[in-house]
Amino acid sequence: MSHICKKLINDVEKCVDDSMEGLVMVNPGLRLVRGHRIIIRSDIEQLKKIEKVAVICGGGSGHEPAYGGFVGEGMLSASVSGAVFASPPPNHILTAIRAVAKGNPGGCLVVVTNYTGDRLNFGQAVEQAKQEGLSVNMLVVGEDCALASSDKTAGRRGLAGTLLILKVWPIIFDCTEKAYTQSVGERLGKTLDFSLSSFPSSPSFPLSSFFLFFFSPSFFPPFIPLPPPHSFLFPVCYTLTGRRVAVLLWILSRDHVACVINNLGGTSLIEMNIISKETIGYLENMGVVVQRAYCGSLITSLEMAGISITVLHIDDSIKECLDYSTTAPAWPHPLLPHSCRDRQTPVQIELEETAEAGTSKTPLGCSITKDQGTKLFDILTNVADHLLESEMTLNDLDKESGDGDCGSTMARGARLLKTELGERDNPGLPVDHPYQLALSLANIAGNSMGGASGGVYSLFFTSAAKALIGGSEVENWSEALKSAIQAIRKYGHADPGDRTMLDALCPAFRVLEEQLKLVEPVEAFRQAFKAAEKGAESTIV
Amino acid sequence: MSHICKKLINDVEKCVDDSMEGLVMVNPGLRLVRGHRIIIRSDIEQLKKIEKVAVICGGGSGHEPAYGGFVGEGMLSASVSGAVFASPPPNHILTAIRAVAKGNPGGCLVVVTNYTGDRLNFGQAVEQAKQEGLSVNMLVVGEDCALASSDKTAGRRGLAGTLLILKVWPIIFDCTEKAYTQSVGERLGKTLDFSLSSFPSSPSFPLSSFFLFFFSPSFFPPFIPLPPPHSFLFPVCYTLTGRRVAVLLWILSRDHVACVINNLGGTSLIEMNIISKETIGYLENMGVVVQRAYCGSLITSLEMAGISITVLHIDDSIKECLDYSTTAPAWPHPLLPHSCRDRQTPVQIELEETAEAGTSKTPLGCSITKDQGTKLFDILTNVADHLLESEMTLNDLDKESGDGDCGSTMARGARLLKTELGERDNPGLPVDHPYQLALSLANIAGNSMGGASGGVYSLFFTSAAKALIGGSEVENWSEALKSAIQAIRKYGHADPGDRTMLDALCPAFRVLEEQLKLVEPVEAFRQAFKAAEKGAESTIV
Repeated sequence: MSHICKKLINDVEKCVDDSMEGLVMVNPGLRLVRGHRIIIRSDIEQLKKIEKVAVICGGGSGHEPAYGGFVGEGMLSASVSGAVFASPPPNHILTAIRAVAKGNPGGCLVVVTNYTGDRLNFGQAVEQAKQEGLSVNMLVVGEDCALASSDKTAGRRGLAGTLLILKVWPIIFDCTEKAYTQSVGERLGKTLDFSLSSFPSSPSFPLSSFFLFFFSPSFFPPFIPLPPPHSFLFPVCYTLTGRRVAVLLWILSRDHVACVINNLGGTSLIEMNIISKETIGYLENMGVVVQRAYCGSLITSLEMAGISITVLHIDDSIKECLDYSTTAPAWPHPLLPHSCRDRQTPVQIELEETAEAGTSKTPLGCSITKDQGTKLFDILTNVADHLLESEMTLNDLDKESGDGDCGSTMARGARLLKTELGERDNPGLPVDHPYQLALSLANIAGNSMGGASGGVYSLFFTSAAKALIGGSEVENWSEALKSAIQAIRKYGHADPGDRTMLDALCPAFRVLEEQLKLVEPVEAFRQAFKAAEKGAESTIV
Repeated sequence: MSHICKKLINDVEKCVDDSMEGLVMVNPGLRLVRGHRIIIRSDIEQLKKIEKVAVICGGGSGHEPAYGGFVGEGMLSASVSGAVFASPPPNHILTAIRAVAKGNPGGCLVVVTNYTGDRLNFGQAVEQAKQEGLSVNMLVVGEDCALASSDKTAGRRGLAGTLLILKVWPIIFDCTEKAYTQSVGERLGKTLDFSLSSFPSSPSFPLSSFFLFFFSPSFFPPFIPLPPPHSFLFPVCYTLTGRRVAVLLWILSRDHVACVINNLGGTSLIEMNIISKETIGYLENMGVVVQRAYCGSLITSLEMAGISITVLHIDDSIKECLDYSTTAPAWPHPLLPHSCRDRQTPVQIELEETAEAGTSKTPLGCSITKDQGTKLFDILTNVADHLLESEMTLNDLDKESGDGDCGSTMARGARLLKTELGERDNPGLPVDHPYQLALSLANIAGNSMGGASGGVYSLFFTSAAKALIGGSEVENWSEALKSAIQAIRKYGHADPGDRTMLDALCPAFRVLEEQLKLVEPVEAFRQAFKAAEKGAESTIV
């Protein structure tokens, strides 16, 4: 079985290279370095001219869009990838550092997630680059709150919190090194003052307040149900906010935070939204001000089913860094209201209650006499009774060509119709207002019959109604039939000959239209009825 | 088993509502309508003031980010969702139409994907809205090239091509209705001239040129391997470009197209990139100009493993619509080079070949005498021989505490070292240039030993090297040991007492430093060696 590939790859050895080629084909503002697994900004030479600190990150592949997707203006200058889940070799890392730091007075910051292999390989490349006289420093990110820092062999892993580091540091360097980013620069210059040479070594840097929890449904054997998010997210957020583990950030009511809800690759987006709701809801319930929230597949593990959650203490400066525009293709773009600086969970819109069509208290459209209304009452009662009587017959017929529920579907409609009709002397439906009555019948069909049939009959009566607003003459009724047929053809994409109700309705209307010019209305309707019967019989195979 | 939930949801009935709440919590520029599954732009009232045509889309849930994620400036005004894979009920759709079209002279376009339930439910809502006097029109999108249009019961489905419609039409309406978007408006005004009232009814509208293929690995039973992308994408693209099926767009060499590579939810991003490479590569090989390419989870089916590919004929006007900025959170942002109007697959960057550190032809750093070099050669040969002899002993010791390959790892390094050293009279390594020699040893360790050990030894020699650039006095060698130890502590995150090589190295350096002040160098090194042995023995448990 080992030769069987269940992945859409051409070749195990080449899959990382193929993937990187695909990334730059979709994003030609990124470039690949030949012979190396390095993604670099296409405008890297311009970047050097403005003496900006270049920022590099990297690690094993399989974590896409990290880190190639975060290369772009305002984020990474370059990224280096290893094989799947393997650290890149030092000579690729050194090549990347040379590519962005040579001839760049700004120098280069290398951001590394806290895994032993990455620390060693990136560390060696950084040491070699220093010996070549390049200005370079290294920052190790490890914000995983599921592991204590006392375990030397592993230590706290670098997880999706890295994403926020990659968004914040390049902007800080933009600002403090050259201060060319106007207001943001001025503001940050007052609160944060770092250059590469004075860069504090990891792990204690002013953004050290990352906390994260990792969760994967694959941990649960198949016979154990998953806990619902509102229950499992409680201990997660409890841990995140520092009440359980010693190494944690202590988040208090009224603190301002940014939050990342990260898809490890295989979690559906409907679940990601639910987890966002529960996470932000938990934090807001404890009085925390969630100033920014990001949700998406940001740092994945192939298509692992699972999530990670990151919380970061922020102030106005950090918020501006997070908001600052970037061209990195994988940075998420949550939508805040116009000129909104403070994210708030929005209240739901209350729409002015508009009555459902056909349920207006004062009937609309033309009226007919009480006697005519009673006649309509009788006709509808007759139709409903007949449909109820025919339930089993229709079901039996439907069993030959369909799923055998045609009679039951019609009976559901007929039953609600009879209930709504009420008493002959005091009808529950506006039988003396044909327009309003047609809309009521549309509601009854839509609410009771279900499925495509409910939709078709509802559409039939809705479309018939409009011909009955202005009057209830013979022409109006003919027009109503015509409109109803047109709507069914238009939205149902059916035509005569398709063995649908149109095979009865279309000949009926054609005959009605012809005969109305020649004979009395009642006779015309009688002939139309016969044409309908003939049309229905023509569908027998 | 039916009660077991393998999804991260709180409640099956409430999962769609929870998900929509989560979406607006992350994106508060979107609002939910209370009691309805409607997402609406928070600035909808401003939109009405500028008399812009509102655009609505919707359908069953489970296709996230469609369609709530495409609500925003430049795309949808509102979206309506049904239950998972079920069309939304007509009264929710009608409420959405009212919310965006009432008091809006621009009116409302309703975009519907071609599924019977959606056509009927959206159709009914549109008919009711018309009867209420609202200006509304409906467009049905069905661009699936896997199904012929002759099959009335299904017809061609609306797939990810819908995304491009949702990007193009709102901009066209922006431009032709009010022409307030400057240049884009002027340009589009000349080539496309539509208003809502003159809107051509589906399915023949000027953007009908969508073609799509759907592929899912779940179609393949577990014992059949997946075909590699370069083989299965050939017939897909062949079909897409119109040489096999009658209903297709005919795409020719030199045609300009936009391309969407859509993740159905459960495909890893590494695979998506590979599929992008193959698809764009196929089109470019046949001479097609792929002007725009989008890749991502755009219209999904929960976490289905699979993809869809869409190709659209474009001209400059359509391209401007696609490029026009939008705040819709789920619209992808591929990165083009600065001021680039025509996407091109970028060539790889050729970096000036920089010699790998330690392989320079002319040795760098200070030199020592030929005799001293020969002594170094002998020492290295001795070390290598001892390591080779000790291979099994070290492996056996490592079996007690590790994975039993310590001896083999060291032997790999020793073997390469002996090969590189060559002959004593004509050494292959720069033994008379200590700095260059240390860098060479770093390369040998990194290239031969593998894993964390290779990284540690490589880092050791790299860091030791820099103390040997300027001279080869006793102080330089002492400083080299110090630097090497510091680097291992810094990047390896280990300390004395952790039972690593530091338990030998640290006492050795301490003794060496002390004794160099008191005794002759050779005696100082002898004592340091003893301290190392004692330190190593202290790790026995």
